Amino acid sequence: MFMRVDKLQAELPAPKKKDPNAGAALQELLGGKYGEMSTLGNYMFQSFNFRSKAKLRPFYELVASITAEELGHVELVSNGVAMLNNGPDNDGDESDGGDISGASNELMKDIRLAASFLSNGGGSAPINSNGASWNNDFVTTTGNVVMDLLHNFHLECGARLHKLRVYTTLSDPTGREVCGYLLVRGSVHAHAYALALKKITGVEIEKMLPTPNIDLSKIPECQKYLDEGSHRRLYTWSPSDYKQMSGIWGNGEMALPGDPPGELVVVDGMPEGGKIHQLTGVPSAFTPDYAPEEMFEIATKLTKKAR
Amino acid sequence: MFMRVDKLQAELPAPKKKDPNAGAALQELLGGKYGEMSTLGNYMFQSFNFRSKAKLRPFYELVASITAEELGHVELVSNGVAMLNNGPDNDGDESDGGDISGASNELMKDIRLAASFLSNGGGSAPINSNGASWNNDFVTTTGNVVMDLLHNFHLECGARLHKLRVYTTLSDPTGREVCGYLLVRGSVHAHAYALALKKITGVEIEKMLPTPNIDLSKIPECQKYLDEGSHRRLYTWSPSDYKQMSGIWGNGEMALPGDPPGELVVVDGMPEGGKIHQLTGVPSAFTPDYAPEEMFEIATKLTKKAR
Amino acid sequence: MFMRVDKLQAELPAPKKKDPNAGAALQELLGGKYGEMSTLGNYMFQSFNFRSKAKLRPFYELVASITAEELGHVELVSNGVAMLNNGPDNDGDESDGGDISGASNELMKDIRLAASFLSNGGGSAPINSNGASWNNDFVTTTGNVVMDLLHNFHLECGARLHKLRVYTTLSDPTGREVCGYLLVRGSVHAHAYALALKKITGVEIEKMLPTPNIDLSKIPECQKYLDEGSHRRLYTWSPSDYKQMSGIWGNGEMALPGDPPGELVVVDGMPEGGKIHQLTGVPSAFTPDYAPEEMFEIATKLTKKAR
Amino acid sequence: MFMRVDKLQAELPAPKKKDPNAGAALQELLGGKYGEMSTLGNYMFQSFNFRSKAKLRPFYELVASITAEELGHVELVSNGVAMLNNGPDNDGDESDGGDISGASNELMKDIRLAASFLSNGGGSAPINSNGASWNNDFVTTTGNVVMDLLHNFHLECGARLHKLRVYTTLSDPTGREVCGYLLVRGSVHAHAYALALKKITGVEIEKMLPTPNIDLSKIPECQKYLDEGSHRRLYTWSPSDYKQMSGIWGNGEMALPGDPPGELVVVDGMPEGGKIHQLTGVPSAFTPDYAPEEMFEIATKLTKKAR
Amino acid sequence: MFMRVDKLQAELPAPKKKDPNAGAALQELLGGKYGEMSTLGNYMFQSFNFRSKAKLRPFYELVASITAEELGHVELVSNGVAMLNNGPDNDGDESDGGDISGASNELMKDIRLAASFLSNGGGSAPINSNGASWNNDFVTTTGNVVMDLLHNFHLECGARLHKLRVYTTLSDPTGREVCGYLLVRGSVHAHAYALALKKITGVEIEKMLPTPNIDLSKIPECQKYLDEGSHRRLYTWSPSDYKQMSGIWGNGEMALPGDPPGELVVVDGMPEGGKIHQLTGVPSAFTPDYAPEEMFEIATKLTKKAR
Amino acid sequence: MFMRVDKLQAELPAPKKKDPNAGAALQELLGGKYGEMSTLGNYMFQSFNFRSKAKLRPFYELVASITAEELGHVELVSNGVAMLNNGPDNDGDESDGGDISGASNELMKDIRLAASFLSNGGGSAPINSNGASWNNDFVTTTGNVVMDLLHNFHLECGARLHKLRVYTTLSDPTGREVCGYLLVRGSVHAHAYALALKKITGVEIEKMLPTPNIDLSKIPECQKYLDEGSHRRLYTWSPSDYKQMSGIWGNGEMALPGDPPGELVVVDGMPEGGKIHQLTGVPSAFTPDYAPEEMFEIATKLTKKAR
Repeated sequence: MFMRVDKLQAELPAPKKKDPNAGAALQELLGGKYGEMSTLGNYMFQSFNFRSKAKLRPFYELVASITAEELGHVELVSNGVAMLNNGPDNDGDESDGGDISGASNELMKDIRLAASFLSNGGGSAPINSNGASWNNDFVTTTGNVVMDLLHNFHLECGARLHKLRVYTTLSDPTGREVCGYLLVRGSVHAHAYALALKKITGVEIEKMLPTPNIDLSKIPECQKYLDEGSHRRLYTWSPSDYKQMSGIWGNGEMALPGDPPGELVVVDGMPEGGKIHQLTGVPSAFTPDYAPEEMFEIATKLTKKAR
Repeated sequence: MFMRVDKLQAELPAPKKKDPNAGAALQELLGGKYGEMSTLGNYMFQSFNFRSKAKLRPFYELVASITAEELGHVELVSNGVAMLNNGPDNDGDESDGGDISGASNELMKDIRLAASFLSNGGGSAPINSNGASWNNDFVTTTGNVVMDLLHNFHLECGARLHKLRVYTTLSDPTGREVCGYLLVRGSVHAHAYALALKKITGVEIEKMLPTPNIDLSKIPECQKYLDEGSHRRLYTWSPSDYKQMSGIWGNGEMALPGDPPGELVVVDGMPEGGKIHQLTGVPSAFTPDYAPEEMFEIATKLTKKAR
Repeated sequence: MFMRVDKLQAELPAPKKKDPNAGAALQELLGGKYGEMSTLGNYMFQSFNFRSKAKLRPFYELVASITAEELGHVELVSNGVAMLNNGPDNDGDESDGGDISGASNELMKDIRLAASFLSNGGGSAPINSNGASWNNDFVTTTGNVVMDLLHNFHLECGARLHKLRVYTTLSDPTGREVCGYLLVRGSVHAHAYALALKKITGVEIEKMLPTPNIDLSKIPECQKYLDEGSHRRLYTWSPSDYKQMSGIWGNGEMALPGDPPGELVVVDGMPEGGKIHQLTGVPSAFTPDYAPEEMFEIATKLTKKAR
Repeated sequence: MFMRVDKLQAELPAPKKKDPNAGAALQELLGGKYGEMSTLGNYMFQSFNFRSKAKLRPFYELVASITAEELGHVELVSNGVAMLNNGPDNDGDESDGGDISGASNELMKDIRLAASFLSNGGGSAPINSNGASWNNDFVTTTGNVVMDLLHNFHLECGARLHKLRVYTTLSDPTGREVCGYLLVRGSVHAHAYALALKKITGVEIEKMLPTPNIDLSKIPECQKYLDEGSHRRLYTWSPSDYKQMSGIWGNGEMALPGDPPGELVVVDGMPEGGKIHQLTGVPSAFTPDYAPEEMFEIATKLTKKAR
Repeated sequence: MFMRVDKLQAELPAPKKKDPNAGAALQELLGGKYGEMSTLGNYMFQSFNFRSKAKLRPFYELVASITAEELGHVELVSNGVAMLNNGPDNDGDESDGGDISGASNELMKDIRLAASFLSNGGGSAPINSNGASWNNDFVTTTGNVVMDLLHNFHLECGARLHKLRVYTTLSDPTGREVCGYLLVRGSVHAHAYALALKKITGVEIEKMLPTPNIDLSKIPECQKYLDEGSHRRLYTWSPSDYKQMSGIWGNGEMALPGDPPGELVVVDGMPEGGKIHQLTGVPSAFTPDYAPEEMFEIATKLTKKAR
Repeated sequence: MFMRVDKLQAELPAPKKKDPNAGAALQELLGGKYGEMSTLGNYMFQSFNFRSKAKLRPFYELVASITAEELGHVELVSNGVAMLNNGPDNDGDESDGGDISGASNELMKDIRLAASFLSNGGGSAPINSNGASWNNDFVTTTGNVVMDLLHNFHLECGARLHKLRVYTTLSDPTGREVCGYLLVRGSVHAHAYALALKKITGVEIEKMLPTPNIDLSKIPECQKYLDEGSHRRLYTWSPSDYKQMSGIWGNGEMALPGDPPGELVVVDGMPEGGKIHQLTGVPSAFTPDYAPEEMFEIATKLTKKAR
């Protein structure tokens, strides 16, 4: 079972301008082969399909627990996409849309992923930066533990490469923050799967990290997360389960050489997180609707009636 | 953010026989157009992309909260699929696979979804009963509140129809229990979206329920859930958020006429749930691996080292 | 613009047994690369996109007019699929579905295209015999007239091969009749595109027919259509347009050597056609619904009120 | 069976400039999830698969008849796409292409849907505005009447939203006219499915219209169609069939409150329509071919020989 | 550039019976995510896109050279598929097809991948065992050398698992021989990518082999290839290029512990290979055509005229 | 079996500027329906699946041999794509990437196929110019010889049209050279399949060439290949096989009327070819890696150790 908390894993700064192509670039990190839908989909189905869960508890818990974090990553990238498509906070206009006969959204005709506006109203979707859909081809769930873990290790390295590439195309702080946070957390996952593989096979595959060959210290947006030790922490993302994965992450294992030193540690629960940015509606794009005033009033009344 | 609890939303009985085609039928409820990946994907992206969240709190919370329940539905169907593919508990054999030269898995050559065995080792995947992948085409997230809610209402009615159809093809208790539980919960969601639409538009669309035109009382596997009042409850699936949706679900609204009577109620948190069934490994199918004994030993040691 | 007439192009005999795998085989002729959705999709988009329509009138009219016939072919195959999935007329039961708790549709669990039952209730869909979807990859519309016509000639030859193959797998009269009729009409279209190419290029490409190398006289189900001269006729499928294509089909051109002899002729309008078979509902599969009696009554009243 | 008439449902003004990105935006209304291929595909397959046609005549006829109109919508949007890609009437050049070695189509390298030029020569195709293909995932044909009608109602509301969005991105009159006409007719279909649902379920779901929450009176391009009463008419699109749907559309039902008042009426046959715009060939793009003069001569001769 | 030799990499025994479902199982090794089209597609595009080829010669050559071998693997599996679909040598009948009106291919109606017969006449195609297509989602070509090599190592381990699984479903010698040969060669490739990674990163990742955890000595069909030392050889698959990869494969590196001992060695050129099995035509399935006698005569004459 | 030679079929000039949209246009010739992946995929699978190879030797050899050439075409287009994405030789920088925090790849955010940079680092992939994947839908392998040859003839005509269209969008010499070379070789293949069809059917289908209706003499980049007689040559692409196809290509057949005159001739082996262009790495895009110096040193040492 899963629970939800109405926060993001990291606080995102407001975008400086409406930049749908930047939102589209972020989509590669959402619906691309090495995007967050893929890390989510792989670990989720692997955890469901895990054989001999009781006998392989630490390995099962590692995959099961990271699944919950990946959900939050999908959420974080999605929020980044929608924010970049929406633009600065004062760009929207939640009041009546007025005259729509003047091609008010003409600029949207020439953006790369036109359907992101036409169909999704600027929202995120499980597609990559070219508009191709995420799908089952991106899911490896073989039931063979070594194979699945090896796949996951390669997946996290690939995800790191893609995040780095997207990062180098973005100048807006919203998208850069998304990348900075995810680079730190993705590196943790690559490290964790490496250690799990090492426990079973004896191969010190974590020495292959970082892949690509660049330390997080080179990315300014990663610093605050490194400073707070995020690179040394795996959260259980659970009220009371998944603590036995500390046999893999912990147990004397240390941070990677290029990162701030310290012992790896499993932390119960989840990080504090940041608030979810308000996405202003754009009535001329029919979000939340053309003339939403009455809808707002209804919602206000319902809120009052709620306990 | 999301959290995870190491339980299923409902306890599933062990299958009476290995029945990969029954598992394949259940896949329609997982990766089909009206399957749980679709309900999850729609509500998840809609909740991320929701405009004017603060001004439309009860509607946002409804979608956001049900997202968490749908995750558990994906988990439940997946467990059902894997259990039916795996067979009764004593069918697997976690010890060394011995001689594999005798075409020991020859029966798998003729099952409908051969890739479920060949690629997934009997595990679930985001595909439908014909092996076609779930994808972005199944996601509607327009940012227009009425449109999204109307879509969701139609989606839940379609999902109910598909569950009923799958149910009528299954004789094994595992799959039937999955359907029974989901029929009750899916009916709740259809009802909830109907009430949300009614609040905004004034149309009593909940009177269109049940669609298809059959009461849950006709499905034996639904009874225990009806008896405990599950059809009248929406859970917040959260430690402390999403309580304002009681303005929609609650607020004097009552159970549907064909169901046991009573007031609709929002319940904090989540149901008690049931334990996750152990899936025995099949070393001759290389799950969790061919000769897993050493891996089991390693896991045991790691478990002891964990706090 | 298009009009519709409530008849099929050919009368189909009732199936002798419920045979979903035969219906699935017919799907190859509906949604496969060389199926009727492809002939429809190619000619439809080519006719929309046709350049210099006025200067190339006979060629434009040929493509535009055959489009309308292909719509009827899609309709014919679809009816065949649904009839084979539904079974003999007395198999369904339009009254209340009664008890559905006994796995009444268990046989549907093992059919090849399970989703045809689970999702479509036995109806047809734009998929092939393996459940893969028809899509844009099957459409060639280049705007180059020779290229498009050459493509169409190859497409009709391929379609003929596929029809012949499907025919050799079917023993039920419904599916065989579909194939017999379509083989005659498809051969007409191959011949027509050959003549169009000959007019432009001078190459007597119609001498490549029949491809595959088998005369229609070998197919018993083709005989009545050959006897009535269907192989020599192109219909305009229009109240008053598309008559100028007789410059291509007609104009002294004759039937192919292996077919009953005679001149090719353009016929105004359309053939008489046959009646559409009634598809009985199956309430336990929720078609048209579980307890449809009230719905039938409503329809009866509405019919009376209609002029 | 289907017939064809060599006209468009509405007359389209010539484009003011060549605007491939505007053509690409229109593609969302052709091959997107809520585009005309979807309305066509859904109603076409639903009408083929309709159970108990005789007992549910008015409902069957409604779906069957609208299918024919949707064909014309696919045609209309396709013509709009090709016109916008082709540009003003004097832009093409039907004579010999001359020297092609100077990168004469270089501008096409940077358009959003490059394949629309490279593969389709500027013609339309069943893809959305991002180049993703239309496919079976967009087709719901369950055989359950309430479910199918509910789906159709939601589909028309979604289609209306997409048309409105595309409209707000277009400044050229060709594309805007396409949207204006389709908005009126799509609103009719939404209304019609609402009434059908109301007849069966008693729920006044038409009160949810218009969705999105904007009257057609706000769209200048809709006015002439409203003035002529198009919003109150359903055509039978047939020489003599489908008249019994007046039990649903008619029978005292009135126009929606925001539209010009009056009774709903079923009209035999079809509207007068407008002429199909000539698409000039572009020999340097090999449409209809590089040096088409001889082809034109041949066509002229064939036309003379036709009766 | 590539050259072709009219032989298979290994001689395949004739099948004992026509077994289309066995052919379909082999398709997983052809068009599945971990099939030969994937190994081919990945290495082919990686070799085309390789950066700094001159400075990274041994690594480039390794990927480039294995590409050529994978082409032969695609060929080998394809031949196996077609042979299993075709059946024993005396099953076909190359003479005139005679009467085809008796549903002579009725058995093909019920096979898992009906389109393999209906569309491909029993031939192979780039699809998996469920009929889903191979596509770009299976190609990783990042241009980052460590990432690409790591991907390839994981891919070969996954491919080995899939081959083992398919092997355990087959009793016919044709398919088992395909698996036996490919298991040996695939293990070589896994080993080779491991050594390449070790050279760059220092991680002894080859110690993770074999994955899955089973020695080739357990597979009878592998023995003759192990006996001849195939597991220690990388071929250059070239008249004179790709010799510098011996810096990776060779250079003192030894066979894996579970395999027959010896030094790894790069061999110029290619193995001797085996002859391609004749696939008998089936005129009633229109292969090579219905009445092929004249075609055979023509070919005989043309052969005589060839030098 | 296949062999590889470390050269391209034609020497490509360095690009004058970095032009990702030109690279994207070339992708249509790689992964589009009528691209080189399609010619490769069709002939490859047809040659594997060819029935009665011994009795139809010249026809089999034609298809089998051209397969090898198509591999080189895929390679040539891929190199062109990567070169255009990479830019002039001095644009890359193989040394340490330095500071990557300044959005150094921001221009890549706005290119048409962003994933070509983000995922493939500017490399080619089996996709078309819109980013849609190549797949099995583009493969026709029916086992019927006339049908397959007819398909191939149409495919080569379509491929020629697409090459011509792409050519007219390109001003950079790299892409134009790719088109010029492929136009000559593709015309040879169209001619060859025409002759094969003529031998079997007697239809002089080669008189339909050239399609589109433009001689190669109009394309400056084709001249040197015409001058050397490339249009009259089919290579065997083999050390010693495939010589019997001279019964089709040769045997007194002559060049097409619009091309330089002369007899058609089968040439043993392959053309001399040109060298493969070095693709400079871009460390800030992590190709071959961020700080590649150590990797270069390792490669140098390994090269020395190789024999």
